[in-house]
Amino acid sequence: MKAKLTEIPGSILAPQGFRAAGVFCDIKRLGTGKGSDKGMKRDLALIVSEVPATVAGMFTTNQACAAPVKVCAARVKKGRAQAVVANSGNANACTGKQGMQDALEMVRFTERALNLPQGLALVGSTGRIGVTMPMDNVRAGIIEAAALLGSTPDHAAQAAEAVMTSDTRSKRVAVEVKLGGKLVRVGGICKGAGMIQPGMSATGKRPAAAPLHATMLCFITSDAVVAPRVLNAALHEAVANSFNRITVDGDMSTNDTVLVLANGLAGNRDFGLGTSDFGLFQTALTHVCLALAKMIVRDGEGVSRFVTVRVKGAKTFSDADAAARAVANSPLVKTSWHGGDPNWGRILAAVGYSPATIVEEKVDIGYSAPGSRDILWSLKRGQPTKAAFKTLCAAVAPKEFDLHINLNLGQAGALMYAADLTEEYVEFNKGDVSDPTSLGG
Amino acid sequence: MKAKLTEIPGSILAPQGFRAAGVFCDIKRLGTGKGSDKGMKRDLALIVSEVPATVAGMFTTNQACAAPVKVCAARVKKGRAQAVVANSGNANACTGKQGMQDALEMVRFTERALNLPQGLALVGSTGRIGVTMPMDNVRAGIIEAAALLGSTPDHAAQAAEAVMTSDTRSKRVAVEVKLGGKLVRVGGICKGAGMIQPGMSATGKRPAAAPLHATMLCFITSDAVVAPRVLNAALHEAVANSFNRITVDGDMSTNDTVLVLANGLAGNRDFGLGTSDFGLFQTALTHVCLALAKMIVRDGEGVSRFVTVRVKGAKTFSDADAAARAVANSPLVKTSWHGGDPNWGRILAAVGYSPATIVEEKVDIGYSAPGSRDILWSLKRGQPTKAAFKTLCAAVAPKEFDLHINLNLGQAGALMYAADLTEEYVEFNKGDVSDPTSLGG
Repeated sequence: MKAKLTEIPGSILAPQGFRAAGVFCDIKRLGTGKGSDKGMKRDLALIVSEVPATVAGMFTTNQACAAPVKVCAARVKKGRAQAVVANSGNANACTGKQGMQDALEMVRFTERALNLPQGLALVGSTGRIGVTMPMDNVRAGIIEAAALLGSTPDHAAQAAEAVMTSDTRSKRVAVEVKLGGKLVRVGGICKGAGMIQPGMSATGKRPAAAPLHATMLCFITSDAVVAPRVLNAALHEAVANSFNRITVDGDMSTNDTVLVLANGLAGNRDFGLGTSDFGLFQTALTHVCLALAKMIVRDGEGVSRFVTVRVKGAKTFSDADAAARAVANSPLVKTSWHGGDPNWGRILAAVGYSPATIVEEKVDIGYSAPGSRDILWSLKRGQPTKAAFKTLCAAVAPKEFDLHINLNLGQAGALMYAADLTEEYVEFNKGDVSDPTSLGG
Repeated sequence: MKAKLTEIPGSILAPQGFRAAGVFCDIKRLGTGKGSDKGMKRDLALIVSEVPATVAGMFTTNQACAAPVKVCAARVKKGRAQAVVANSGNANACTGKQGMQDALEMVRFTERALNLPQGLALVGSTGRIGVTMPMDNVRAGIIEAAALLGSTPDHAAQAAEAVMTSDTRSKRVAVEVKLGGKLVRVGGICKGAGMIQPGMSATGKRPAAAPLHATMLCFITSDAVVAPRVLNAALHEAVANSFNRITVDGDMSTNDTVLVLANGLAGNRDFGLGTSDFGLFQTALTHVCLALAKMIVRDGEGVSRFVTVRVKGAKTFSDADAAARAVANSPLVKTSWHGGDPNWGRILAAVGYSPATIVEEKVDIGYSAPGSRDILWSLKRGQPTKAAFKTLCAAVAPKEFDLHINLNLGQAGALMYAADLTEEYVEFNKGDVSDPTSLGG
């Protein structure tokens, strides 16, 4: 069943009862003066609900995980939250005891600035690793943002800008869906760009299909009435099919965070797992996560091509997943995509060295337009087809295409949304040691 | 015990009783005329022993493995060989039944051209994937090479040139060692450049420390008297500590092959496993493999820096290996090396997302000159040290340095010889689809 979803403007402020702001408080200590009116990219955001909300979160499974992740993971267990403070410019990672104190000070200071009960603020950070937070600037930013909170689309856009790092575009989406006659809205913002192959869970345990790495932060709001346990289940499913299916460079961040706050102001009837209302809400939440996840890949550092790797015919999901990730993260496959080269030899080699069980003589490899079933096969049962090289090149020339791999061994499948590997990625990430503030985590 | 090893010239022709040749027979079908006198890079090599030799081999564990690998893996089981035919320009991979016929024809035609008994020739191929071998050119090349066989250093150099693909330098080494008063020599040539993270075994089973990928071919000769079982054990040990410890891009090839032929002409006394002569021979063979393996990394596609990643303090070897490989293959770590950026944040993130068990608060990260114990630490027990950023940059500025990672959890260690990731790697591997002959496997 496909739910009737309508994309609407407003992103995190499309749901009722939320306010947001984004300000510049010089977290990178650029020393260019303070204030969001100075034309600098904003670096601190607040997102606040009028009333306490149900919350669920998923976080990086990296064993080196940042202080804000630790603070959030502990706090979301209570299932209630009312505000999020988020910043770019500093990841507050590898900052030890001082980092934990700073992350806690960020949520406590936010609670005081907003007159919230203790324990209802959450925090997300992204940026440089190993540098302690400039807490005076952060406190000033929180005070300024609290004073500027509002619910216009501009406010949402400013919050989205404040979490951007190497992103070239801010990432926002919202949808509405009807639950028993009530309009329920779900909206989100996120940031990505590099260190992108999230493998998030709520418990710190790696998902069955173990991914590798990103700094991505995603903040989702909803006005749905939904119990914590139900929201948690919906978020797991949504992330499993979106953020945990993307890769830019295969590097998993220390800071990956997805938070969803649902404040209940839509007034829909509460729903349980497995109900049709749950199905509708799930569809909306997954839509928001998937739309944002795809934006992350398309706006990845130096990315020039967006490829959906579709593996089917595997013996197990774990095999399908392993094959898809091997292809999606192979430097040779990714550079060939960049070059518009169908190079199925490299694709077959990557599938062959993946942990997935394959039989070379059974593998099919082909290309299609995004979502199309009209597949041009380059390899059938391990043998090159008669497709002309020029025709194959034409199939992989577009900015976006699907890569189809059928192992013909079983019924399991998996897909990955992947990016190519370009000179620009290398150029960007080799950084500039003469300007250490340019060196991201 | 360190054996007294002397590096000597002559590579594969340093041991007694071997001859070689390298010719151009236009395997890429460049159509520029035949003959090794046309100034084209040679593309077919013969290496021949005067007498049948003991042989051992190790091969890619990629499940998509090329026809010549299948032919060799079957033939080396008999433990006897006398000749190797090797070519660049075409990998004879993903070429199905025709590929198997062609690989068999290459060894059989070589046997006839050299008047050898059936079953004593082996074959190695590297180059384009999915294109059948131009067998008329190959046969002509074998005939020409057989006529030109010789034992001068030039002959060895020509054979080494013939297996090069994107290599910029030919790779050759030889050593001699005294076994019971007899001089025994071991020499080798190899090729590498891209698709380099070999994970070779003799049985097709992945080594315990599962690596990922390369096309590397390596041919080793020796005049030692050594039994097949003993030679096999020595080769396993040598490869485990050399080729299986390197990575350029983390891509494992369909064609990785190491062959060693020992013809017994040195007249040393036969030796068993665990004897002191075995130890000496092992040292010589490992020296040859390690020297060649390092040459592969230093001459990897676009490589500008050679980094030895040294992990210690892991709970198990498998953990140490996983941590070292995660760091050595992280695009973000590799681009930071390229930029001369000590970026220990990315290194810690890679260790953290690896399958190795780590405790962030225990990890040390530092840098030294190659082989030096004078380590400059950037991270101690998970916390940044007071080392100045400029000082850390100076430590990673040289073309070659060691990266030290101590997990401080146990006694196990592992190292990887790794390369950085550069714009040139991307530029080279995106290829030129207007010239399909430029597209390697």
